[in-house]
Amino acid sequence: MEMPEPDAEILAKKTQIVARLQAVLPDGAVISDVAEVKAYECDALSAYRCPPLCAVLPADTEQVSAVLKICHEMGVPVVPRGSGTSLAGGALPTADSVILGVARMNDVLEVDYDNRFIQVQSGRTNLSVTGAVEEDGFFYAPDPSSQLACAIAGNIAMNSGGAHCLKYGVTTNNLLGVTLVLMDGEVVEIGGAHLDASGLDLLGLICGSEGQLGVVTEATLKILPKPEGARPVLIGFDSNEVAGACVSDIIKAGVLPVAIEFMDRPCIEATEAFAHPGYPDCEALLIVEVEGSDAEIDFQLGRIMEIAARHNPVELRQSQSEEESAKIWLGRKSAFGAMGQINDYMCLDGTIPVSELPYVLRRIGELSKEYGLGVGNVFHAGDGNMHPLILYDANKPGDLELAERFGADVLRLCVEVGGCLTGEHGVGIEKRDLMVDQFTSADIEAQLRVKDVFDPKWLLNPAKVFPLQATKARRAG
Amino acid sequence: MEMPEPDAEILAKKTQIVARLQAVLPDGAVISDVAEVKAYECDALSAYRCPPLCAVLPADTEQVSAVLKICHEMGVPVVPRGSGTSLAGGALPTADSVILGVARMNDVLEVDYDNRFIQVQSGRTNLSVTGAVEEDGFFYAPDPSSQLACAIAGNIAMNSGGAHCLKYGVTTNNLLGVTLVLMDGEVVEIGGAHLDASGLDLLGLICGSEGQLGVVTEATLKILPKPEGARPVLIGFDSNEVAGACVSDIIKAGVLPVAIEFMDRPCIEATEAFAHPGYPDCEALLIVEVEGSDAEIDFQLGRIMEIAARHNPVELRQSQSEEESAKIWLGRKSAFGAMGQINDYMCLDGTIPVSELPYVLRRIGELSKEYGLGVGNVFHAGDGNMHPLILYDANKPGDLELAERFGADVLRLCVEVGGCLTGEHGVGIEKRDLMVDQFTSADIEAQLRVKDVFDPKWLLNPAKVFPLQATKARRAG
Repeated sequence: MEMPEPDAEILAKKTQIVARLQAVLPDGAVISDVAEVKAYECDALSAYRCPPLCAVLPADTEQVSAVLKICHEMGVPVVPRGSGTSLAGGALPTADSVILGVARMNDVLEVDYDNRFIQVQSGRTNLSVTGAVEEDGFFYAPDPSSQLACAIAGNIAMNSGGAHCLKYGVTTNNLLGVTLVLMDGEVVEIGGAHLDASGLDLLGLICGSEGQLGVVTEATLKILPKPEGARPVLIGFDSNEVAGACVSDIIKAGVLPVAIEFMDRPCIEATEAFAHPGYPDCEALLIVEVEGSDAEIDFQLGRIMEIAARHNPVELRQSQSEEESAKIWLGRKSAFGAMGQINDYMCLDGTIPVSELPYVLRRIGELSKEYGLGVGNVFHAGDGNMHPLILYDANKPGDLELAERFGADVLRLCVEVGGCLTGEHGVGIEKRDLMVDQFTSADIEAQLRVKDVFDPKWLLNPAKVFPLQATKARRAG
Repeated sequence: MEMPEPDAEILAKKTQIVARLQAVLPDGAVISDVAEVKAYECDALSAYRCPPLCAVLPADTEQVSAVLKICHEMGVPVVPRGSGTSLAGGALPTADSVILGVARMNDVLEVDYDNRFIQVQSGRTNLSVTGAVEEDGFFYAPDPSSQLACAIAGNIAMNSGGAHCLKYGVTTNNLLGVTLVLMDGEVVEIGGAHLDASGLDLLGLICGSEGQLGVVTEATLKILPKPEGARPVLIGFDSNEVAGACVSDIIKAGVLPVAIEFMDRPCIEATEAFAHPGYPDCEALLIVEVEGSDAEIDFQLGRIMEIAARHNPVELRQSQSEEESAKIWLGRKSAFGAMGQINDYMCLDGTIPVSELPYVLRRIGELSKEYGLGVGNVFHAGDGNMHPLILYDANKPGDLELAERFGADVLRLCVEVGGCLTGEHGVGIEKRDLMVDQFTSADIEAQLRVKDVFDPKWLLNPAKVFPLQATKARRAG
């Protein structure tokens, strides 16, 4: 992956930059030792690595503001980082950048059950947001597979979803407000604990902006009362296409499960070996979960099983206990890890109109044969958010590049059928050059100009999201 | 309401402007006769009036683009107009502007049940979107009270809600994509029939931008399957505050009705006299509606009635038939009209955190006494979206100004308790100068700069949304 040449002037000023940052931060909050800085050289897209100039770990909004003010004055690029779980290289440093990690900012600032929100510092992990309210019967809905580790800051940057977002929406539907520090250090409050906002929807603009517009330090999030109960059903099919058609029919019928998850044979087998969730031996598997009272669950699952039965499933099994449900979900949430145990893989993230599932799954199978690379599918089928895993051998020269080309073809296929380059992982560095397949040059120019407004020097999270040529031209002025 | 001086140069060029517009539009699509133009001199905030230079009624995206290109070249301001139902003066012309009405653009372009969307031209009325799909069991969720008349274009401009948005969300949650014509005539596509979008969330930015960034000509909207059934319950209380506390408790308990509507005595009485919905004689009334199968409805209404019973209601009555339900809703949807029969009123639109309802209702009562002006409350209580109607006498000198000051105090009160200036009516001209109470100057500057990007000459929908001084400074360059 091509990156811009690091700025030699900045590299030469490293000592001075580190000293100024140390002056405004507590002891131990600036990491500049070459060995220690290596911890920040990549995120979960570990095929790409580059150690930053240094990393800082501020404790609050004020410290973030002080860091950005210094970097702004000195013209130093800044890469915001949540927990580093990005699968699209969203937190990949450049050699001349400061990593701004929010990991130490994990306090709960306010819980308000009457108005159903929680305010947290942005470094708090996704699961520990729910952890702070679950004793009182509430939860935070978006649930990325990485929820044990990933930070709310990253969830906001990527507009993350998760298995249960079919019913509850993704981050943007559950975010009420943020404290945002602009690149020049100015602190602004956007949104709050109320419906909608006057003026332009800057909150919506910030959500999913991949650290391009500012650094989110605090977030106000919707919390929901836990449903009375939930129950998944496992449906096995003898082909991917038929499973895709069944998803399309469930959505069309107007049943709204909380989740419809899809796995194909390579993922089922890897997951079964790894986590023993008791999945059936079949080509494709759906996990469909509904929530509510027992009566509601029975009624909804009844309709879903009726629809499934029309597609000749090889297995159709309701969970009989909470233990069984937990095992079924443990399997799904372990699927990426299970695949990682036996393969190097590149995880794609595109969205498509749900009715195109059967066609797109067939085309991915054909592309897999053409490229000679295996592929596993495990994804949120209900909202058309696909995650094909392209399998390759990291030790075989040329295999990564082949996988990248295969991946690009799959994402172009998503755009072709009326879908989109990314569902929840973001564009990052991974897909920046594919933006031209999704957007016209006028569309991209409009986005660049919005970035100009928030970050006129183009210092925030460099070389990502937009095509590299566009970024370079902008930085050159 | 102060408006900027019309541009004398533009007024002088009227004949030339009209001729150029006529050259690119079909016969009859340019309205320039002084008597005919009067039809466009105001929207539903009829206290403010100003005839435009002329009005155009294009038939499609291409014609809109041609109109904007001409106006851009000639430096003529353009005021986009849906059906003119804005309660905030969102479509108020200036004397030197061209009204761009989308009323003739009302075709259905595509219906896709598999992927659950409909694509329409933006002039189509809200209710006729549902009309196009209801035979097949689907509906479009956002339901403003003006849904018989209001256009999707205006719904998008104001991010409109409605009584049933507590469950289904407002326009931004039901909008998948738009065709947008920029002020220079360029046509861009934003979003589409898929989840989320790569790059910046420009769709979210456009939704609710009140015609400041471009003209929406086509929209792709989510459609939902009609629920099996719905049933409202009427709950009467002997004070506004107790009704407010009951709403807060329902929300807190985690039940999610599709609607919680609130009416106080002045509105109940006016509505009963006008539409005879059979409302009880009480100080405050809630209409709470739930949807689902009969079993689900029974279960949810059971919980709601249990909560209501704790607040000593003077009436607690479930609808017993579809006819009764229809009457209850007809009353609610007629409430604004009923009030208009007996009073001049100014309809406010602020949002507050739901738990502040009792306090805010009490303060509004106190302000009503201080100003010596009556007030009626009828609003979407479940999501804290208030619509106090301030009663005044349009024929009494000074009364409108008094009502405006009262209204401004109420909106400041909303901001004070952590709420917002507008829920769904928009800022328009009505609330532009109150923006400084909601936002810091840095916040407003960020919004102005985003506007700069899309409309550098500041020609679109002039003198609205932003404080007048800011707009004037921007236009002066």
